[in-house]
This record gives sequence, structure tokens and C-alpha cells, in this order.
Amino acid sequence: MQILKSSKCFGGEVRFYEHDSLITKTKMRFSVFLPLQANPPVSCMLWLSGLTCTEENFIIKAGAQKYLADKNIMLLCPDTSPRGLTLPYEHESDDFGSGASFYLSASTPGYKDHYDMYNYINNELYNLIKTEFISSNAKISICGHSMGGHGALVIGLKNPYKYYKISAFAPIVNPSQCPWGQKAFNGYLGNDKEEWKIWDATELMKSGFCHPQPIIIEQGLSDPFLEKQLLTENFAKVCEDYGQTLQVNYHEGYDHSYWFIASFIEWHI
Amino acid sequence: MQILKSSKCFGGEVRFYEHDSLITKTKMRFSVFLPLQANPPVSCMLWLSGLTCTEENFIIKAGAQKYLADKNIMLLCPDTSPRGLTLPYEHESDDFGSGASFYLSASTPGYKDHYDMYNYINNELYNLIKTEFISSNAKISICGHSMGGHGALVIGLKNPYKYYKISAFAPIVNPSQCPWGQKAFNGYLGNDKEEWKIWDATELMKSGFCHPQPIIIEQGLSDPFLEKQLLTENFAKVCEDYGQTLQVNYHEGYDHSYWFIASFIEWHI
Repeated sequence: MQILKSSKCFGGEVRFYEHDSLITKTKMRFSVFLPLQANPPVSCMLWLSGLTCTEENFIIKAGAQKYLADKNIMLLCPDTSPRGLTLPYEHESDDFGSGASFYLSASTPGYKDHYDMYNYINNELYNLIKTEFISSNAKISICGHSMGGHGALVIGLKNPYKYYKISAFAPIVNPSQCPWGQKAFNGYLGNDKEEWKIWDATELMKSGFCHPQPIIIEQGLSDPFLEKQLLTENFAKVCEDYGQTLQVNYHEGYDHSYWFIASFIEWHI
Repeated sequence: MQILKSSKCFGGEVRFYEHDSLITKTKMRFSVFLPLQANPPVSCMLWLSGLTCTEENFIIKAGAQKYLADKNIMLLCPDTSPRGLTLPYEHESDDFGSGASFYLSASTPGYKDHYDMYNYINNELYNLIKTEFISSNAKISICGHSMGGHGALVIGLKNPYKYYKISAFAPIVNPSQCPWGQKAFNGYLGNDKEEWKIWDATELMKSGFCHPQPIIIEQGLSDPFLEKQLLTENFAKVCEDYGQTLQVNYHEGYDHSYWFIASFIEWHI
């Protein structure tokens, strides 16, 4: 695990790392913010970014470090997919392949050998956070934006006792019912729609998956993707039907951008 | 003046504009943050960015909007040079030409027709802020980073009653004595070193230019450019010699990056 660069920030340190992943069989990058208090961080915010993002977007644009420093919480932001591969269709669009892993375990030829971001995040990175950065009793929460919000919901619901809290900004909550999700699931999982269900937060809830803590979603009402891609209400309905506590905070006038995330990250943290 | 995009942010709005500049004779871009309170902004923070930057860097990376919103201060960030030209050597390096205007009025062939960022900022943009964004009694302060810190010091010292306060992060304070400044001044002004002096904050101070308010400088002590390019102590010395109140805040361990700027922008505002 190699530190590519680091800078002092809000009394702590922002660092960019690269390591060889056993799961994706590629080099992977992630960024961290370490409050560098006298004691190890009391918890970790594991942030999954959206389509086209890298390990840089959230840590540069969200302005979270001040609030994390105040509370002695570390941040870790993985990249959004393996890099440096040349799989079929991997580099042809913004919503599939590179930068668009959807945080699942792919089963299609080529992709199944590398695009296992689910196990990369949930096992390899999770264990690395526990062994390298925080003490054994510190908590890890999972959150994300858009495709990363989908990732946070799915990974968190499948592993409720590994993640203290699940939260998201503008998540894709029901990917099997929206164009982004359908394209990605076809490419990563094939056309067996039963297999799709274990990677869809709304479907997981219907199958009995839930989380002991309230799930928090922030959603802008001027988000151009709300109606066709995010489908927030589908998740709200199954949470109500299946008894999962969910708090959706709708924000008048806010869109899908990091300007929206920055505006509410303090409250969210 | 055309709005290219806008997003709600901290209850106000971030906007990116493009307009035809009479001074640079090119299209120019700038970004603004408007707190959108009930009343027009009480003041404007005019921010000049450093080498290689555009109108985007500060507004995306510094995390200033929250504090500006709280105080009803607007922000305006111009681009760092004219764009879309093909002047000699304009696109060959990071420290001259495109993205590296040094905020002066060039006098060399080709550059003198377009690279008059001094008058673009100090007249065209200044008047546009006054007429489009703030009320007549609102104040404009000028600040910047690195090359933009140099710009803020020079423009502010030459026009002390137009700018309420001058401040800077890691400014180039004595460009005629450092490699970045010498290269730029040779290219924009030619080799008459007397002409260089009117674009050098340390030399301006020696010629009697000053500002009625204290000048504030934030400077990281792990900044790799401190010793060879920024020369902070040269400016501190002339301020002391000529009676200009100056507050230099040195910060242990901080470098030249936006991680440093973000860490101290709240205090600075």
C-alpha cells in the first residue's frame, strides 16, 4: 500500500493511496482523510461515489473534512471501478465499465474476473480500514452518491452488522427498474432478472433484508434524474411496507451535483 | 453576459458565466456564488486564482460558500487568462500564457492586444460586479492564491480605495526576484526592469503605494515554493520599512494546495 501524495488539511491529513487488489486483480486507488487527533479515529465514513467519479471527487468537492476533523471521524473514498483493463465495451460510455462498476460482483465473461467491487469494498477495503486506520471498536458507516448511494444501500443492507449506519445522497434505489441500472445489470450480470434482485436495494428489502438503524437519504427536488433513474419513492414504499425506518429529506431547488452534497454534508455527518 | 450553468448551493446559487470582454477582446468566463438572501450581498470577495487554474478551482475546492452564505457575501472568481488565442509560446508551459496571465497589462507584441487582465479585473469586471450584483454601498475585497495572490496585492495596492481589503494565500510577493515572475515579466513586459516594478507588490510598496487596511497573508511552512518563488519575507520587510500594517499567518505543516486554503478560508472570510 503506497501513499501517492498527502497534504495537511484541517489539522489532519488528506492522503491518496494505491494498492494491488487481490479481488479486482488490478491496482486500486483510494483517498482518505485522517483527523490525526491524539487518538485513532472514533469511526470511519466509507463513501462510494457516482458514475464517472474517482477517489478524488468527494474529498475535493464536498467540504467534509472540517466536520470530520471536529468529530475525529476518518473518511475513505475508493475509486468507482477497476482501471487499466480493456474489457468489451468498458470504455465506450459513462454509465458502464470504467468509472461505473455499480459496486456488485459481476458474473459475465471478462467482467467476472475483475469487476467484483462488492467484495473489494466489503472485504478487502473493509479489512484494510480495520487493520490500518481505526481501532477494533470503532464503527464504519457506509454512504454514497447516486450509483454510490445504490452501492451503500446494497452493501449496507446485505451486511447490517458490519456498517453502523447507511445513508445516501440521491441514490439509485431500484436499479432493475431504471435505464442506468438495466444497462449495467445486463452487462455485468446478464439477462437473468432473478440475479438482478440481490443487487437492488428495493428488491433486497422485499426479500427481508433490513438495517437496525434508520437509513437516511438526502434528495434534491430539482434533480433531473429523480423521476426516471433514482426512483426514490419505490424504496420509500418498501421501507414502509417492511418496517424499515427511513428518513428521506427532500430539498427544494437542489440538483444532482456536489453543490447539493456540500450544502448538506455537515448535517449528514 | 450568459449563464452557462447554475446550481443551488447553501441556500444561494453557484453560477458560471461567459461574456465578451471589451478589454481582452475574447470571451471570458467567471464563476459566482450569490447568497440569495432577501437583500443584495453586503460585499463581494473577488478571488484571483493561481497558475493553471480556471474560474472553477476556488469555487469547487475551497469550501467557502457556507461561510459566505452565513455572512451574505458574494464571491466572484474570474478565469486566470484569456482563452482561445494562439499567441507565441502561449500554450507551451504552465507558467506563461494561457492560465498564467499574472494579472498585468502586457506590452509585448500579440500579448498587448489581449493580455490586459489588470484592466479586465480592475475596470471591466469591477464595474460589472457593481452594476449587476451588489448595491452601490457594498464593499469589494480582493484576494487570491499564489499568482492570484500577487494579482490581489498589485491590483489592491494600485487602487486602495476601490478594494476594502487585500488578502492572499501563499502569494508571489516579489515576482521580479523569482523565476516564475521573471519568466512571465520577460514575456509580457519585455526586458526593461523599470517597467517590471509597477507589477511587483514589494516594489510598489517601496514606491509609496499602500493600503489603509491591514493586509492579511496566510502561508504554509511546508509550501515547496516558499523559499524560491513566493519570497514572503521580502514583502514583510518592505511593509515594516514603509509602515504598511501586514499580518502574515504562518501555518506549520501546510503546503501550497487547496487543502491548505480550505483549512483556513473560514477564518479568512
